[in-house]
Order: sequence, then structure tokens, then C-alpha cells
Amino acid sequence: MTTSSSSAPILAPGEPRRAQPVVPTGTARTALRPLDAGAARIDGGFWALRQERNGAAAVREAYDLLEKAGNFANLRIAAGLEEGQARGPIFMDSDIYKWLEAVAFEYGRVPADDLLRLQREVTDLVARAQADDGYLDSVQQILGGVEGRYTDLPWSHEMYCAGHLFQAAVAQVRATSDTALLDVAVRLADHLDATFGPGKRQDVDGHPVVEMGLVELARETGERRYLDLAAHFVEARGRGYTAGLGKESTYFSDRVPVREAVTVEGHAVRAVYLGAGATDVAIERGDADLLGAVEGQFAAMMSSKAFITGGLGARWDFEAFGDPYELPGDRGYAESCAAIGGVQWAWRLLLATGKPVYADAIERFLFNAFLPGVSLRGTEYFYVNPLQLREGAHADENRSPAHGRRGWFDCACCPPNIMRTFASLDAYLATTREGGLQLHQFAPGTFDFAGGAVRVETDYPWSGSVGIEVTRSEGAWSLDLRIPAWSDETRLAVNGEAVDAAPGTYARITRDFRVGDIIRLDLDLTPRVYAADARIDASRGAVAVERGPLVYALESHDSPGVTIDDATIDLAGAITETERPDLLDGIVTLEAAGRVPSAHAETAWPYRRVRAGDAAAVRTDEGVGYAGADPERAPEAPAPVPLTLVPYYAWANRGAGSMRVWIPVD
Amino acid sequence: MTTSSSSAPILAPGEPRRAQPVVPTGTARTALRPLDAGAARIDGGFWALRQERNGAAAVREAYDLLEKAGNFANLRIAAGLEEGQARGPIFMDSDIYKWLEAVAFEYGRVPADDLLRLQREVTDLVARAQADDGYLDSVQQILGGVEGRYTDLPWSHEMYCAGHLFQAAVAQVRATSDTALLDVAVRLADHLDATFGPGKRQDVDGHPVVEMGLVELARETGERRYLDLAAHFVEARGRGYTAGLGKESTYFSDRVPVREAVTVEGHAVRAVYLGAGATDVAIERGDADLLGAVEGQFAAMMSSKAFITGGLGARWDFEAFGDPYELPGDRGYAESCAAIGGVQWAWRLLLATGKPVYADAIERFLFNAFLPGVSLRGTEYFYVNPLQLREGAHADENRSPAHGRRGWFDCACCPPNIMRTFASLDAYLATTREGGLQLHQFAPGTFDFAGGAVRVETDYPWSGSVGIEVTRSEGAWSLDLRIPAWSDETRLAVNGEAVDAAPGTYARITRDFRVGDIIRLDLDLTPRVYAADARIDASRGAVAVERGPLVYALESHDSPGVTIDDATIDLAGAITETERPDLLDGIVTLEAAGRVPSAHAETAWPYRRVRAGDAAAVRTDEGVGYAGADPERAPEAPAPVPLTLVPYYAWANRGAGSMRVWIPVD
Repeated sequence: MTTSSSSAPILAPGEPRRAQPVVPTGTARTALRPLDAGAARIDGGFWALRQERNGAAAVREAYDLLEKAGNFANLRIAAGLEEGQARGPIFMDSDIYKWLEAVAFEYGRVPADDLLRLQREVTDLVARAQADDGYLDSVQQILGGVEGRYTDLPWSHEMYCAGHLFQAAVAQVRATSDTALLDVAVRLADHLDATFGPGKRQDVDGHPVVEMGLVELARETGERRYLDLAAHFVEARGRGYTAGLGKESTYFSDRVPVREAVTVEGHAVRAVYLGAGATDVAIERGDADLLGAVEGQFAAMMSSKAFITGGLGARWDFEAFGDPYELPGDRGYAESCAAIGGVQWAWRLLLATGKPVYADAIERFLFNAFLPGVSLRGTEYFYVNPLQLREGAHADENRSPAHGRRGWFDCACCPPNIMRTFASLDAYLATTREGGLQLHQFAPGTFDFAGGAVRVETDYPWSGSVGIEVTRSEGAWSLDLRIPAWSDETRLAVNGEAVDAAPGTYARITRDFRVGDIIRLDLDLTPRVYAADARIDASRGAVAVERGPLVYALESHDSPGVTIDDATIDLAGAITETERPDLLDGIVTLEAAGRVPSAHAETAWPYRRVRAGDAAAVRTDEGVGYAGADPERAPEAPAPVPLTLVPYYAWANRGAGSMRVWIPVD
Repeated sequence: MTTSSSSAPILAPGEPRRAQPVVPTGTARTALRPLDAGAARIDGGFWALRQERNGAAAVREAYDLLEKAGNFANLRIAAGLEEGQARGPIFMDSDIYKWLEAVAFEYGRVPADDLLRLQREVTDLVARAQADDGYLDSVQQILGGVEGRYTDLPWSHEMYCAGHLFQAAVAQVRATSDTALLDVAVRLADHLDATFGPGKRQDVDGHPVVEMGLVELARETGERRYLDLAAHFVEARGRGYTAGLGKESTYFSDRVPVREAVTVEGHAVRAVYLGAGATDVAIERGDADLLGAVEGQFAAMMSSKAFITGGLGARWDFEAFGDPYELPGDRGYAESCAAIGGVQWAWRLLLATGKPVYADAIERFLFNAFLPGVSLRGTEYFYVNPLQLREGAHADENRSPAHGRRGWFDCACCPPNIMRTFASLDAYLATTREGGLQLHQFAPGTFDFAGGAVRVETDYPWSGSVGIEVTRSEGAWSLDLRIPAWSDETRLAVNGEAVDAAPGTYARITRDFRVGDIIRLDLDLTPRVYAADARIDASRGAVAVERGPLVYALESHDSPGVTIDDATIDLAGAITETERPDLLDGIVTLEAAGRVPSAHAETAWPYRRVRAGDAAAVRTDEGVGYAGADPERAPEAPAPVPLTLVPYYAWANRGAGSMRVWIPVD
């Protein structure tokens, strides 16, 4: 923790660092700690390419997109620099803050003057928009004036915007050493602290995130009041403050107190942001009871409310978690922002507990729930990430995946959220604890901690081989390597000497490491087939295929002439692998045997009589055929067809088409 | 068809008749014709009880509910009788019209002065609210004045309200011989005709129903212009008139011209009302091309977009049909109004073609999609009719089934729609054509046609025995009896002499019937088990059980201590039947063998590894257990449990509980 005051420059202005988005204080109760700023560096491979495109195109182009959408105009109007009406959704400022956070992290990753100029220009505008007393929310300032402040908290998103501002301000200091946004943040946080809390006004914002923001601001500034206010907001939920204000309290994560909640419910992004913020509070206050509650909620989420992709949020209506096991592939919402919130929550739980399941979850979220939300070019997005899109599906609103990926949204929460996640991704790969380094995710790069440093080389996730070379060592220490739960036959060796490596654990190598020591990890990427719990209706009688950390999908582009909606998979056949450097930035495809119906009785009633003891449909009720149907005709035997699967994250990069993750079993 | 002018009383005022809601003209192209008013009378049994409760309670109590909701106040304000703001949704008038239609039909069914008083009082109010030039829409008159008329047709529902007014006016004349509402309707129809049509303004209403209303008004008044205007509105869809007005054109059934559409899509009630109206137009104009198109659309709907209950509409968002085979049991919308529209559409197709599939569909809609929408008491409603409600599901809005049935809704389209359907149900049971009577549905009652009459006795749907006695006969004629597609072993005899009766056909008995001839039909009610097309994700690996025309469901009340969400059914066991006169107004329950998991690994990742060639999950990936989980523990063997099923329509009459139609196979 830095204890400097918020107004003094911590580093020389503009000094770049690959910064950590989460830095628990020295007294925080954590099993693991993040590496220091700059100590984790991805420098090649799968994720580096995504980061490069994010930095080179998305982050820089977003400036114009925010201008075009009116986000900056709102600030200018609030600042009295121009006249006009408020534009866009009420939370427009938050898009700017997430983007500023991305700019800061990207500057830390690849310093460039144009980024610093953008940062300073927009930070200056934010500062000008801030009211004299510290209040800041441009849309509220334009629409509601001073009297309108905090009068519609379930919907106004004032604290939501504040939370994102705090995160951006902290990132700006840590990654660029500029303190201008931190000054704004501190003034706004003081305004919130003067307004809300024990003995002051009791209320909660409709959309959590201010909790994470306040804790991080407390960590950065050393100001305990911000942590206390975050804790207050966590404890204030489930007390009825949003009742009767337009939606059921479920929607706002406000039905039950956080400590008493046993699952996640309602709006998915709200729920996971709250979970992450509550975890931050638990860590900083050493609150084992609260940590136990959020661990239980995360467990319930992963065991009954997560798609196999890690996608979170079953329902389009209210962008919400469904009931347990309500996980429809076709209508799954799985908002890109919810996946990002999932990463943030799991990362905090990993720091708190050191349990490998949280690192496994992060890997699943990143590859299969976050990454599908952005095109390979890095500048087109999905807001919604279903596990199936049928042939000929008609888009029925802006964010429908049937439109294909889009350059921006009216409600543009996802794009800048994706940008800041790519730009800070280095931070989520490794941790340290006394006497050791833990590698949770595998990517080429360098990782330093107090006792040593390593360099990682790998073509993961295409190859399971990970080479690790010790590049600095100060005596004996431990290297922990996460062995993913799915890796059946793992080989691990130090300088050629075999070491045990059980799936779902950290393999620990403790020794007096020398520079040049080589650790070789070979994960088992053999394709795997999964069935879902029978209570997940949409996946019953179907399977999904994974290879390494990647969930695979059928996409129509790879099966010309075949309606993949109708395909079944034949599990008796082997699943083969093909390296395709030419395809989709280079992937490994999987091939399986499948079948498709030769012809359909498309106009027959689709519910067929089964015989007792045999669940295979035997016939249509006599005569139940509509126009053009021949009810006498038995369904024809399905014809064999080869199925090609591609990584789910890569779908919809070859134009609109049909896609499915769950494939019915033949 | 009556050709009298609209202002002259056709019968002595107040003369009651069980009236037909659909009466094609003499020149209409139909295979079958409805019976004359009063010629079809249900007088006992299953449906009579529902009709009695509808009439005694729902129809009469609705007057106060409409007053309380502000529907009548809107008319009074529009009429200048009081001051105030418009209340409720923009289509508030339509609730009144559907209720007036119910009042008229109910008066025809069971004449009573209080109904006639209500009818005349409210009709007078409607007439007073009508503008001098014939325009009528109270909310528009209050909010938009003359300038606002027809300026927001995708959303204003002005023609939607008009269509319901036309239907109510025609019902009023036919059932009670009062012509006051018909006068209002004719003036409004003339106003519409003066405004819209070829050479006039080109536009369509966002919500179809005016098409059915105009055709019926044309039939009743003999005014061809109304039919032509209806035809115009049918042909005007799919021409882009709703484009860019707030939703995709799909929502408004406006993406493709009706003649070119090959399926139904978008908002379900809109789509089926349009289908019914287009069928009316096709019948009256002898338009085989249009009839072929709507037959194809109905076939596509039934083969890929209908739940096994006949429920229509897969999605909560936009209350819409989903993609083909998108039929989630838990989140199925299946609006009660959509089932009613389904009956109306299927009835018109039955009249047009005489095909038994349409009568089968009507039976399915009535028992399993319409009837579930109302409590056994007749005064509590479901707006949404899913096929599953999980234990502990939280309601997240007014119309959520997790709330249980409700006495009224903010958007109250369903309750009066249900009332008018019950009150006119007699009309949907039988038809005539030259030289014959056709019985499509089975209920105790009397059915007259030109050549004779019969009396029907039956305890259907609990018993499959239907006794038919000839009570009048004028020489030789044919009696056609629908043999439901599901009746495997049907016995049919005339005066003890066996007659062939194949499922999915009409069994025809042609003879010189004598008074006292007895026809005995025994349908096969043996419980049946159905599996769904493999493309219906939510039903894959599960079965539904039917007995006779009824779809059955598990309800938690019948399985104390068992979480039916988790139950599976063992198809090897027999399904037994139990008469339960004490339960739910008297039902037959079904009993099957099932299993429930002994214990759950509730905190484990719910996707389990399967072996090649074996779709049964074998194990969790090692180590993927969250807080409290024991990942090493294999799932325990499920424990046997008896399952009791009740008719789906009867669920949620014993308080809130869980329910499911599709039961996974053991």
C-alpha cells in the first residue's frame, strides 16, 4: 500500500508501469498477494496478440466513439463548456471511466505519448465537470440539478459511475503516476462519505461497483473512511432501500443481506460486482464470516447458474441470473460484462484463499466467457454471448447476436470493460506469498517476485507444453503451478527430474533454485466430452467438447450444406485434432463424427409417442400432420456427416452464421 | 348473414341466443359452417362447470375491477363526463370491449337482467365517448387530441381497440339483439374506412385484431367496404410501415408480407390474431392462395413453435415466438391470450378446410393452453403459462407465475379474453355442412342442424365414453365424429353395430337416422408418453405424459418431501390411473415410478466428463469443487419415489408450488 497523500505525485508524471488493479493492504487477510507493478509481463503468444489489437485499435478508436455517442458532450455540458441536452443512458460517465482505466493500463503496458495526451485531456474534462462540492455525475447534473442528486438511487447509477471513476483514478496513478483523476476521485469519495453511512443517510445504489472502487481508493490513499463506507454499502443491501422502486429487489441484489445470501440472483452484472466488492471488504477487514458468505455464493453460482463457458446470466429479461439449472443455450444472456465481473470476483477470492478452483474459474471466464465478447480484430463486440444461434434467426434488438458483432452499443458498458480487462490482463496470471511464486495462468512472459524471477515460454492454449526458466533466484523458494482440473495426464519435471502434478491442485516445487533451472510442464490437452447435470434442461441429452481450457462449438462456416441446428454427435467415434494456422488467427480444430436427419417432417407435431421403457420416439400420433405433411412417413434414418468444431471464443468472426456448443448425442 | 341495416333492431331487444362469434357469409368459401345461433348448447359436464363459474363470478366481478383499474374513467373523461388523467396502458378500452363481448355471450348463455343492465350502461358510456366524427379511443382522445390520432400506430393500439369493439358489437347483436354498440362500431369503422385503404392513407396498426373485427362487422352488416378494408390491412403488412418505430418489424408481424410468410414470428398474440384475421379474409374472398399461406404458417407454428400444451410464445422478452424448436419449459411465455388466438385461428381454418388437425389443435389449446390461464374458481389468472416452475423461484414482475394466480393485471388483456372465450365456448364444438353434422369436441349438450339434432352425454375428458342420441331427424344425413389422433383403440357403434373409427380422421356415419338412434363412441384414454423432437433443447431426454386430451404435470403438492425439480421418471414401470373426485373439482391422477437423487453435490461444477460412446456422466473433473464440496464423491444412486401427476390445467390451485410437465427420463 502506498500511504502518500492523494495530491502528491507518487512517481514522476508519465512513468509507465504494468499496474495491478487490485492491491490489498499489508494488513489485509489474504493467502496470496499480487505481484508488484510491472512484475508480471505478458510478452507474446495468444493473449499478447489480443492485447496488441486492443491497444492499437480499440482503446484509441474509442475516443472518437465516446465523442460520437455524446459521452464527452455530457461532461462538457456539466462543466458549463457547452450547451445541450444530456445524451445516452444515465450511466454514460461510466463508459468514459472504464475507458480511462483502459488507457492507463495500456499506457503502462506500451507507453505512448498519444495515450497520455488522451488521458490528460479527458481527465481535465472530468475535473472541470465536477461540482465545487465534489459531486460528479454529468447526466444528473444536467437533468436533475443539485436537488436531483441521489433522489433515484435504484436507477440513477450515480454511485455506479463513482465506483468506475475510483477504479480509473487508481489505475491512472498506478500505471502512469498522474494524480489528476485521483484528486477528482478523492473529492467525490469525500462527498459520498459526507452524505452516506452510519449516522448519515441510509441508502444503496441500484448498481453495485462503488464497493470495489471505494476499497481500492482506500488502498491507494490509505484513507480508512473509504473502506468503512464500502463496508457500509455492502451491509446496507437487503434492508429494503430499493423496495417498491420499479423492480423487485431481486433485480438489485437487494432481496437478502449479503451475509445471508446463499446464491446469486437478479441482474447478473450487479450480482457479481457486489460479490467482488464484498470480497474486497472481507479481505481488508479480515472478516471470515463475510468471506465465507461470498465463497458460498460463488460456489452456488458456479454449480447451478454458470454456463459451461463460464457465461453468467440466463435471462434476456432483466439481464438476470435464472433459477438454479436454468441455463438455456439459445437464450443465454451471458453478458460480456458479467464475465469480466466473474474474473474480478474470482481473482479476489483467489487472493483471499489461494484455492485453485478460483484460478480454474478465471481461466474459464477469460477464454470462454470474456473473449467471445470481442472480435479477433478487437473492435467489434458481443454484448450477449449465447451458446447457440440458429440458422436464420432474426435479430430483434440492438444487442442481438443475430446481428453479428457490433462496433458499439446504445448501452455501451461492454466495450470499454473489455478494453480495460485486456490492458490489465498481465496482473491476473501470477501471485506471490512469502517464499514463493504462483503461476495461475500460462502465457509467455516474465514474472518477478521478491525471491526470484522466471520466464515462461508456451504456445498455450494450442499446446500443453509450458517451459519455465529461472532467471533470478535468491535462495530457496517455492514455485506453485496450477494443474488445471481437466488435465488427466500431466507431466512435470525440474531439470528433467519428474515431479508429481495432480489435477485440480497446485504442483509445488520447493528448492534452492538456480538461474537457468528449467521447469517443464506438459498439460494433457486430449479433447474431452462433457454432459450436464440432468436438471439443466437445455443441455440434457447433449454434450459439449473441450480441449485444454477451451470450450468448442460447431459453426455453420465449417459445415457447408449442413444445418448444424439439426446435427447430432456420435460419441463412439474418436475426436481428432487439426492444427489450422491459417484459420481465425491460428487455431486447432476438432473433428467428430455426426449425423443429420436426411429429411424432416417439418409440418408434423414435434412430440412423438414413446413406448414404455424406451425413450426413443417411435411414431407421431396418427394423422397429426399439417399442410403438406405425410404423417404416415416414419422419420428417415439420419445420414453421417463429419463435424468440425472451432473454439467458441472465435465464432462469428467469419460473418453471421449458426453456432452451437451443446450437441445432442446421436 | 343478416343484411339488415345496422340501426334497425334485428330481434326484440334483449332476446337471448347462444351466439356464434364467427359466421361466414353464404358466399364464403368454407368446407364447414357453424351451427345457427342457439343450436349448440353445452348443458353439463366439464366445461359447463367452468362456464358457470365464469358467468357467476368472473364476468360480473369484472365490472368493479374495470372501474377500479380506471378503464371506465377513461371513457368518462373522453366523454366529457368527468375530469382527470388517462389511466393504465394505452389499450385500456380493449379490456372493456372484450368484457362487453363476454357479457353478451353470457347473457345469451344464461339470460339475466343484471347482465343486460351492465351491457347497456357501459355501451351507453362507450357511445358517449365516441367523437362526433366516429373516432373512438379514450386514451388517445385524452392524451393526444384530434391531432394525435393515428400518429403512432405501431404503439397506439387504436385499431386494436377498434377491432375488439367490432367483435363486441357483433356479439351484442347476435346474443342480445341490442344494436347500440353496433351503431358505435359502424361509425368507427366508417371513420377508419374514410382514413385508410387504397388511395387513402397507407398504414397498419402495431397490433392486429382489427382484421377479424372488420370481417365480422362486414358479415353482420353486409357492408363489403369493411371486408375490403380488412383485406387491405392484411396485405399492407410486411411493407415497412412500422419500420424504425421502436422495435424490429418482426415484433409487429410486419417483416414479410402475409402471403409470403412461411412461419409465425415476433409477438405471439399479434401473430396469431393476424393469422386468424387473414384466414377470415381468405374465406370471405375465396382466396385459395392466402388460405394456403396461413395454413402453412399454422403448420410451421404447430410443428416447431408450440409447446406440447399448445402454448404459444417462447420468450418473455417481447412476449414472442422464438426460433424454431426454441421451447423452454421454464421460461416459456405461452400467454393465455395467445392460446385464445390459437383457438380463433384454428377454428377459422377448420371452417375453411374441414381438416381434423385443426379440431385436434383446438382441443389441445382449450384444455392445455387456455384453461391453465384461469383458476378453478374462475377469478384468478395466469398471464404466462410456463411448463415448469422450480422450487423457491422468485417472482420478478407482476405477471410472474411465481406469484401464483392473480385477480387482475396492470396489463389486463388476458382476464376478459378468457371470459369471452368461456362464454362463447358452445360455438366451437360442432359444425354443419350440406347433409350433415360434425362433432369436433365432446361435451354434454344438444346440437341442432337443418337435417336433425342430437343430444350428447359424456364425462369427457375423464371418461372416453361418449353417448349420442338422435333427437330429431329429417331423412338421411351424415354424422361426423372427430376421432382424436391419440386414440389408438377406438370403438364406435350405431345401435350396437360397429363402425370404423381411425385416429386422426372423422368417423362418418351416414344413414337414415331415426329419433332414438344411439351412437356410442369409446375413445382410448390409456395414458401416453411423449418425447420431443431432439431439436427442442429443453425437452430432450425427458418425456411428457398425456391422458386423453389432457397434458399432465408433476406438482409439488402431490409429492411432499420430494423436490420434483430433481425427479426423473422410470419408463419401465406402468402408469396407473386413480379417480379423485375429491381433488381439484374432480380429476383423474396418474401415478408413475420415479427417482430423485439421494443427495446433491450442490457446490460442484455441474458439467461432468463422459466416456466416448457413453453419454452418462462418469465423473467431475478432479478438484472442481467449491466451498463445502467433496469433489471425490461420486453422485449417489437416486432413490425410488412414486410420482403423482395431475392435469396441467389444474396446477397452482392449491397455492404456490413447483411444477413440471417435462420429466427427465431415468
